[in-house]
Amino acid sequence: MLSIHLVNDILKRSFREDIGSGDLTTNYCVPPDKVGSGRLMAKEEGVLAGIDIAAQAFSFLDQSVKSKLLFKDGQRVNRGDAVLIVEGPLQPILTSERIALNLLQRLSGIATQTALWVEEIKEYPAKLTDTRKTTPGLRMLEKYAVQVGGGQNHRLALDGGIMIKDNHIAAAGGIEKAVQAARSRAPFTLKIEVEVTNLDDLEEALAAGVDIVMLDNMNTEIMHRAVQINAGKALIEASGNVTFSRLKEIAATGVDYISSGALTHSVKALDFSFLLNR
Amino acid sequence: MLSIHLVNDILKRSFREDIGSGDLTTNYCVPPDKVGSGRLMAKEEGVLAGIDIAAQAFSFLDQSVKSKLLFKDGQRVNRGDAVLIVEGPLQPILTSERIALNLLQRLSGIATQTALWVEEIKEYPAKLTDTRKTTPGLRMLEKYAVQVGGGQNHRLALDGGIMIKDNHIAAAGGIEKAVQAARSRAPFTLKIEVEVTNLDDLEEALAAGVDIVMLDNMNTEIMHRAVQINAGKALIEASGNVTFSRLKEIAATGVDYISSGALTHSVKALDFSFLLNR
Amino acid sequence: MLSIHLVNDILKRSFREDIGSGDLTTNYCVPPDKVGSGRLMAKEEGVLAGIDIAAQAFSFLDQSVKSKLLFKDGQRVNRGDAVLIVEGPLQPILTSERIALNLLQRLSGIATQTALWVEEIKEYPAKLTDTRKTTPGLRMLEKYAVQVGGGQNHRLALDGGIMIKDNHIAAAGGIEKAVQAARSRAPFTLKIEVEVTNLDDLEEALAAGVDIVMLDNMNTEIMHRAVQINAGKALIEASGNVTFSRLKEIAATGVDYISSGALTHSVKALDFSFLLNR
Amino acid sequence: MLSIHLVNDILKRSFREDIGSGDLTTNYCVPPDKVGSGRLMAKEEGVLAGIDIAAQAFSFLDQSVKSKLLFKDGQRVNRGDAVLIVEGPLQPILTSERIALNLLQRLSGIATQTALWVEEIKEYPAKLTDTRKTTPGLRMLEKYAVQVGGGQNHRLALDGGIMIKDNHIAAAGGIEKAVQAARSRAPFTLKIEVEVTNLDDLEEALAAGVDIVMLDNMNTEIMHRAVQINAGKALIEASGNVTFSRLKEIAATGVDYISSGALTHSVKALDFSFLLNR
Amino acid sequence: MLSIHLVNDILKRSFREDIGSGDLTTNYCVPPDKVGSGRLMAKEEGVLAGIDIAAQAFSFLDQSVKSKLLFKDGQRVNRGDAVLIVEGPLQPILTSERIALNLLQRLSGIATQTALWVEEIKEYPAKLTDTRKTTPGLRMLEKYAVQVGGGQNHRLALDGGIMIKDNHIAAAGGIEKAVQAARSRAPFTLKIEVEVTNLDDLEEALAAGVDIVMLDNMNTEIMHRAVQINAGKALIEASGNVTFSRLKEIAATGVDYISSGALTHSVKALDFSFLLNR
Amino acid sequence: MLSIHLVNDILKRSFREDIGSGDLTTNYCVPPDKVGSGRLMAKEEGVLAGIDIAAQAFSFLDQSVKSKLLFKDGQRVNRGDAVLIVEGPLQPILTSERIALNLLQRLSGIATQTALWVEEIKEYPAKLTDTRKTTPGLRMLEKYAVQVGGGQNHRLALDGGIMIKDNHIAAAGGIEKAVQAARSRAPFTLKIEVEVTNLDDLEEALAAGVDIVMLDNMNTEIMHRAVQINAGKALIEASGNVTFSRLKEIAATGVDYISSGALTHSVKALDFSFLLNR
Repeated sequence: MLSIHLVNDILKRSFREDIGSGDLTTNYCVPPDKVGSGRLMAKEEGVLAGIDIAAQAFSFLDQSVKSKLLFKDGQRVNRGDAVLIVEGPLQPILTSERIALNLLQRLSGIATQTALWVEEIKEYPAKLTDTRKTTPGLRMLEKYAVQVGGGQNHRLALDGGIMIKDNHIAAAGGIEKAVQAARSRAPFTLKIEVEVTNLDDLEEALAAGVDIVMLDNMNTEIMHRAVQINAGKALIEASGNVTFSRLKEIAATGVDYISSGALTHSVKALDFSFLLNR
Repeated sequence: MLSIHLVNDILKRSFREDIGSGDLTTNYCVPPDKVGSGRLMAKEEGVLAGIDIAAQAFSFLDQSVKSKLLFKDGQRVNRGDAVLIVEGPLQPILTSERIALNLLQRLSGIATQTALWVEEIKEYPAKLTDTRKTTPGLRMLEKYAVQVGGGQNHRLALDGGIMIKDNHIAAAGGIEKAVQAARSRAPFTLKIEVEVTNLDDLEEALAAGVDIVMLDNMNTEIMHRAVQINAGKALIEASGNVTFSRLKEIAATGVDYISSGALTHSVKALDFSFLLNR
Repeated sequence: MLSIHLVNDILKRSFREDIGSGDLTTNYCVPPDKVGSGRLMAKEEGVLAGIDIAAQAFSFLDQSVKSKLLFKDGQRVNRGDAVLIVEGPLQPILTSERIALNLLQRLSGIATQTALWVEEIKEYPAKLTDTRKTTPGLRMLEKYAVQVGGGQNHRLALDGGIMIKDNHIAAAGGIEKAVQAARSRAPFTLKIEVEVTNLDDLEEALAAGVDIVMLDNMNTEIMHRAVQINAGKALIEASGNVTFSRLKEIAATGVDYISSGALTHSVKALDFSFLLNR
Repeated sequence: MLSIHLVNDILKRSFREDIGSGDLTTNYCVPPDKVGSGRLMAKEEGVLAGIDIAAQAFSFLDQSVKSKLLFKDGQRVNRGDAVLIVEGPLQPILTSERIALNLLQRLSGIATQTALWVEEIKEYPAKLTDTRKTTPGLRMLEKYAVQVGGGQNHRLALDGGIMIKDNHIAAAGGIEKAVQAARSRAPFTLKIEVEVTNLDDLEEALAAGVDIVMLDNMNTEIMHRAVQINAGKALIEASGNVTFSRLKEIAATGVDYISSGALTHSVKALDFSFLLNR
Repeated sequence: MLSIHLVNDILKRSFREDIGSGDLTTNYCVPPDKVGSGRLMAKEEGVLAGIDIAAQAFSFLDQSVKSKLLFKDGQRVNRGDAVLIVEGPLQPILTSERIALNLLQRLSGIATQTALWVEEIKEYPAKLTDTRKTTPGLRMLEKYAVQVGGGQNHRLALDGGIMIKDNHIAAAGGIEKAVQAARSRAPFTLKIEVEVTNLDDLEEALAAGVDIVMLDNMNTEIMHRAVQINAGKALIEASGNVTFSRLKEIAATGVDYISSGALTHSVKALDFSFLLNR
Repeated sequence: MLSIHLVNDILKRSFREDIGSGDLTTNYCVPPDKVGSGRLMAKEEGVLAGIDIAAQAFSFLDQSVKSKLLFKDGQRVNRGDAVLIVEGPLQPILTSERIALNLLQRLSGIATQTALWVEEIKEYPAKLTDTRKTTPGLRMLEKYAVQVGGGQNHRLALDGGIMIKDNHIAAAGGIEKAVQAARSRAPFTLKIEVEVTNLDDLEEALAAGVDIVMLDNMNTEIMHRAVQINAGKALIEASGNVTFSRLKEIAATGVDYISSGALTHSVKALDFSFLLNR
């Protein structure tokens, strides 16, 4: 699902950043003609995400390095599971190990946390969705990891939807004017979403015919009333101050989407290690 | 301390990633000639890192956007503190808000956590240091944030030091051979570090005249003996399984450096928000 | 509306392409310290588009070159109108003249043709829209010119909407399955459009709850029936074999959008010339 | 004849522009492992140009996509001719279809128009040549299409010949001084061309020993006298206000080259479509 | 004469190469707010080339660094001459010093050697010219330095002239066929040069109407006869085994151009140093 | 030892620089389907460096071009030795010939000179080392060539060691303060070197515990005393005014390293030629 070209661009700058003038230790201590194999091992339990990217990283410097995937993204791994076997000349394998791990650990951390949250609200129709609060430079990888964990993506970038926030409303001179301006000029293939903080704004947004309403920082009681007022006209997204402990009560209000920046901005890496076979 | 060019490269790809074909909402809802001001506010307590980068982000699309810094990196901020005032045309300000926040929140999160850890061992001579387990593409920013939090940097990239790990040792045919190979070919301005997992290896490394020894995954008792055996010959770095709760006991062994990947790979963003002035 | 950075990237590669190792004629025949002024003149009647881009091109090599705009994009110009005054060192002015003209002429050609077509259907609610049949590398500029001419943009790129064509339907195993697949995985901020070639498909698409239906290569009678069947449920786009002479009859069917690739792929440049003032 | 690297650079930015964050429709509606084949069909009569580029586009995202060319550039195609068979995984084929078509249609449009013009003057020795009035970013492709259509290339870029226009002459202080300046400093492998608007200038240019004279916007009578005055000393190029209807009379004056910007700046795309085989 | 953009691209990669992750010494030992001034001094006698480039290098990291040029390119400098004063914050000045020097020393070395060679043949009409044997990545800078030293440029790149060597002749099936192929397809603004190794080939080349003949590795007697045979029809270039000691005798044969790769591939840097003012 | 990616980046810009819009001579005179073979020949005696790079250059435009290496880097070649056989389509072979030669000649020139200098001091323990006075853009290639010739590398870039020169000392307020600043903030994997011009400074540097002292422009007598004062505490590097004729006497003082910029900034290319097999 992820473009090989996009991943390649990320790997290119990652290797440039990490190698600098050269991996001197490997260059000088490991004979260039030495070949071998190694395995990526999970060191804790979680949901795997980024295994193809890790494989691409290991082959980045030398296409003769070959990987065999023992798990697929989305699968649950346990401590001690070997997830990838890599084989080939040792120099490029050792130089790429850290980048493969850094990416795999972060993406699997995101997928693991997302899966936990999704599980929490599985009895409700509400879907868990990410935000634009992603790591600069890794947006698409992180959004992919959210999908792997069972979440759904909000817009991928600023061109993937009209999202009118309070600042836009103020600048445009009101909700209706803002919606009107967007509708008359933006590509008609994009939905229009408006952020509201109270029920009056909600009514104004619905009157303007918006496709999605985002309820910002509301308590669950108000959210519930918003859902009732909406009565299926627009999609409803709950956002702001979304924590794991509040997930269920938010989902119970009947909103369609619950979005959380923490899925991508506060991530505990899932631990993996790489071992050469002796 | 951070190069403006390096930050600019990161901003360039961040904006390309986030804007895509255009910030359509802002372009169509906010009049191009509308000017105004806003402020970046801390929403929780922590150590500020990246405020100059945030300012650079706000001016990235339009140099007529001006920032006034109310806090400096390294200062402690509290919930409600305004840390930056930004002023100029609203379109570029609104389009750059998210990128400024994403970077500032991550770097301040790193600095805050680092400061907490550094505080924990302040009574010992041991210094806290980072690793290469950083976010691909943001290495230098994250290493900078570790410095801001009071930590010291380990090597910045693979060309900034010789670090001989077990795989290198195996490939080279032993510690002495590996050290010899590196010393005869690497730039003589780089120190040579060897990773050891037991005291025999430590003795072999010291005999080979290494500059730094890394004690990998040792318990504190063994670490303590390693420090005694070393007797000041090399610098000693403790690594592996370093958690906050173990920090003090590790420091008490007398090691010179304690390194932890968690400082950069498992970060809780420090919360900030951006508000336009009405 | 167009990002200065995006235009700058296009200019950068245009200048690299046109200059190669250097504008030798100008470098050797025009003294570096010679300054002067010139004007961009319309040589035929039409709608201006790209005047800011032309100004940016003239200053690209040397920021001391200054432009004064006498017309704005969207205004109608006549043969003989001076639209831009440029002033500064002659070397960069002469080297950039051709690139400024090449872009201005193409964009104004697009805006002029679009305006003609829009005028033709002004009495109907249908809106004229472009396609992805744009010049590779100039997409956003050409879409901008369509807006300047009074047209509306279809999706800007493949990530700006879900557009399910016959090949996608066949691969997915039917309209409903394709729509279902997209809805469950794509960002929920994007509308879903399905291309249909007959009324049965139209009914299936409407049953699947699509947001937009594209009537592909239908005659106007069938289009009219499609509009009736739709009865306001989805937006209706007419496409395929759209020529100027058919515009009115298509608009009269009651469709919401009429899209045409010819707006951008078959353009007659609007003629301009650049004259130095003596 | 076209460099694969140059075409690759153009494709790279075309795909980046068109794909953005991803071809979401294809990614989500077409199974990744689905393979198939399709064919590029001509929908009108004309001269084919760019078929290798189209093939390269189809393989750009995935080298396992293979093309079989049924026609070669320069051949005449008729409505209904299949010109290219493409085979492989459907996802990359569908994502690249539009870019392949956009390029093929434009280049074939140029070749078709050029061939028509060349045919018109085939009984005269005069050769038809292009200008620098090409689409920014596609210069070499368009110049190649002119060749395919039977035209000859004028200089490819500003470094491929000395071309002294009126502005250069004025800045240098006369034709002789300008020619002298260029001859003493420019690479001696480049010919020197001077633009003249009257016969006095022509004589001055010939006296200065130029290699080529460009007759700018002259009527055919004056052109004819210019040819006589020149008497074979320099090459003569006719330019300015060159339309199809005037081609023959211009050629009849005995000039060596006739140049026209319309060959590349006002192009009607040649229509092709892509069909998957069922 | 050199494009600021071209120089900027060279500086950008030079700084990236030299700085890597940062100029750590300067960053940590020099306070960021410390300002001062310094001067570039010639340490030996020669011809200055690249002084503007050196100034551009000093300002590359920080535009507030200002330079004052005391000499201009082409002037002769003596040991002890200050050629440039630079003033501003010390950090960027110290970080850029080495790159400024590396470029200035190389270019001045080229100009100095070229000037010596030009002087040697000043009594003859023959002009000294460079080749494509330049340092990869610095072509235009080195060709510029040759001009500064009084030499003339041969073609700047492979697209700046047709140069048919023995391999091309063999592949094309003879001189006449090769010339014919080039003339019918290459831009007519480029001269056609043929390399010949004997007088028979010379006659064949002249018969084919070439613009330039290159006499490859001939002794001066044969060169002289070639000049007589040519009798002014084509330009004559002498090449191969051109050393300083042979310059005069080659020039005396009456050839138009003498080309030498040594002007750019075997250069002794002209020594300069940079001193901060105390 | 050299990264294929790094070499590829250098080749990419070298080809872009040399080809420009196209190798017109080859494109038009050599049939695209013509294949053949050729050989790289040494034309003088020396040490080979860069043969793999030359092979990579020949395959850069077309991977079907294959090379067979007859010599390896570090081997001594004699006039007439064929060092590389290349085989494949003639067009890409002829277009890449010059770049392959330009790089091979420069690197072999460096290795040859380095080997000569190393030989001169072989009876002493002192090692010959390079500097940062390399050709901008070719740093790593030139440092590699120094290694091939038997020299050792000084730091590869500004991030590969702390090197405190007089300007840094002045700015920091003395040697001790500068060393202290660097030690407390720079990665602890880097050695600290201080440049001294007299014995007092040497003592101060040693007192500050530096790892390396560079003796700048000292006469051999002072150097000798410096070595005695140092008594093995730090490594000693001699620099400044290092010529071939002084090498032995400097080495005899007992210094550990002798560094010379001339190894890379004043290089006589080693002559090679490329011949197609007939």
